[in-house]
Amino acid sequence: MKETKVSSIGERALISRLSAIFNAPEGKERIQKGILAGAGSDDCAVLDLKGEDCLVVTTDMLHRTTDFPAEMTPWQMGWMSAAVNLSDIAAMGAEPTGILMAIGMPSDSEIAFIEELARGIQACADFCGTAVIGGDIDTHAELTITGTALGRVKKSQLLLRRGAKPGDLVCITGYTGTAGAALKAVQTKKCVSEAVLKALFEPIPRTKEARKLAESGAVTSMMDTSDGLAMSLYDLSRQSKVGFMIRENALPVLPEVRQFASGPGELLEFALYTGGDFELIFTVDPGRLKKVQNICNLTIIGECTKYEAGIMLESPECRLTAIKQLGYQQLKA
Amino acid sequence: MKETKVSSIGERALISRLSAIFNAPEGKERIQKGILAGAGSDDCAVLDLKGEDCLVVTTDMLHRTTDFPAEMTPWQMGWMSAAVNLSDIAAMGAEPTGILMAIGMPSDSEIAFIEELARGIQACADFCGTAVIGGDIDTHAELTITGTALGRVKKSQLLLRRGAKPGDLVCITGYTGTAGAALKAVQTKKCVSEAVLKALFEPIPRTKEARKLAESGAVTSMMDTSDGLAMSLYDLSRQSKVGFMIRENALPVLPEVRQFASGPGELLEFALYTGGDFELIFTVDPGRLKKVQNICNLTIIGECTKYEAGIMLESPECRLTAIKQLGYQQLKA
Repeated sequence: MKETKVSSIGERALISRLSAIFNAPEGKERIQKGILAGAGSDDCAVLDLKGEDCLVVTTDMLHRTTDFPAEMTPWQMGWMSAAVNLSDIAAMGAEPTGILMAIGMPSDSEIAFIEELARGIQACADFCGTAVIGGDIDTHAELTITGTALGRVKKSQLLLRRGAKPGDLVCITGYTGTAGAALKAVQTKKCVSEAVLKALFEPIPRTKEARKLAESGAVTSMMDTSDGLAMSLYDLSRQSKVGFMIRENALPVLPEVRQFASGPGELLEFALYTGGDFELIFTVDPGRLKKVQNICNLTIIGECTKYEAGIMLESPECRLTAIKQLGYQQLKA
Repeated sequence: MKETKVSSIGERALISRLSAIFNAPEGKERIQKGILAGAGSDDCAVLDLKGEDCLVVTTDMLHRTTDFPAEMTPWQMGWMSAAVNLSDIAAMGAEPTGILMAIGMPSDSEIAFIEELARGIQACADFCGTAVIGGDIDTHAELTITGTALGRVKKSQLLLRRGAKPGDLVCITGYTGTAGAALKAVQTKKCVSEAVLKALFEPIPRTKEARKLAESGAVTSMMDTSDGLAMSLYDLSRQSKVGFMIRENALPVLPEVRQFASGPGELLEFALYTGGDFELIFTVDPGRLKKVQNICNLTIIGECTKYEAGIMLESPECRLTAIKQLGYQQLKA
């Protein structure tokens, strides 16, 4: 049977088909228009501001049933909607300059619910040092929120997924697998601490850390880990044309998450293959490591290798296995 | 009974409640952050680019059931989704610099349908001299498209809703009431020409005209007429603190629309109180009228008066009636 439905080809194939339509004005013409990069290959699209700066911009659409677990408060839904976009701005090393929020809501929504949602959006924007500058409201059968965030960064400090070189060190901020463990706990109705739940429901965009990393001049590539560590490694690999050797022992996982995991298999599942952590993964020129070490809570988890070497995990017993290209599945039970 | 649902207070009251939450960082602090204007009071939010330019940005969410009549082709849905945003960029006198499209689609959507939609988006972006620079795709029960458009304009050429003065002439590009007549025709299954239908299904953002008007230095305020002429007059009045005297005789209505209307009452209804025309309404310093007259197809429809005089319509017999604050109702039959 011929595959004619979008569900039959999957998200990535569809994006590539649509990109082919949208990228019709190619190369030189796009550069004349000031488009330094379309969003297809990075966390944000990049526009030339003609001076020393560039503008980065990203958009994300969230739906209640697929993106907000039932346990989330309206404030957390608002925070999350802003955070997914502001994390993409951070991933480019940029300073956020504003966020727009289009909200489609059922007409029988409680005013108090929508106001709490707005307070969550505002709190996240404020936390990241920016503001809600515009938006749109509309009635809609299902709560739908599309955020668009803008940021600004010197061209010389812009951090892309491209740029890592073999020998560079691979680092991440914070912990990995926390949001994944929290989702599992919520789905299986198990008890975890407030701190673990917050990683899932109130993820913190690493805005300040990102700016400092960009200013350091030591970082060669960067993105966020919102689709999971493994997916991020694959994206960095594809854009930078490097492989990775990641040390299982080095993966920063919260002690509570280690205990919560049913065994080493699930622990690795949380750390590598679940999304929702809004940490930064970045590569560092080893000669400049000192410049980034005091910037924030970071962990060196491995190093860049040749592209042909693939994306490998080294076990504590020095066994090598390939990391799979698996990651964030939308928040469905 | 206490009004607790969003439907009970209406869109404008809800926007004002949300704006109060989002505008928490007030005055000086917003200016420090480079926010020249939030989107609440104009077609776009305005960000300072620190040089001579500013960035304008707008977002609009459209849903299949409420925004796309059944007769629309997928290509036209795409065109429309881009056009609503690019028209807002034009309304500020700005040059579009890119558009992002977040598309939520049912998982059983035909690939061919989504590709046609993308071609419509691309065609409109291309027509306006810009490109699709990013986006997001997501599965969703109802087709939902949120566009975000960016534009750039010299601060000295930025056109706001604020700026009209008593004595300024009121002009519009093109015709008024065409899209409203087309919608009526579609709803009542009456026959109208392709040209009239296209005004509704493929509205043309006045990008080039807007740039020339902004460069002329003669325009004192501007916005688009997408919510209808009457609503636009009310918005300009509120922001500029002027009244209007509009001459019924002067309203540019297509001959076909005049014939289609069941009588003078419906004709006026089309011309003043229906949305969907993406023309520009703007005010001109009468001493500089010559500078704009050759720019585009424009019609002088009246003049600005004192705020206290209200928004009045002068009939061919010189009778004065107040224009009501009525306009665009979402495209429901």
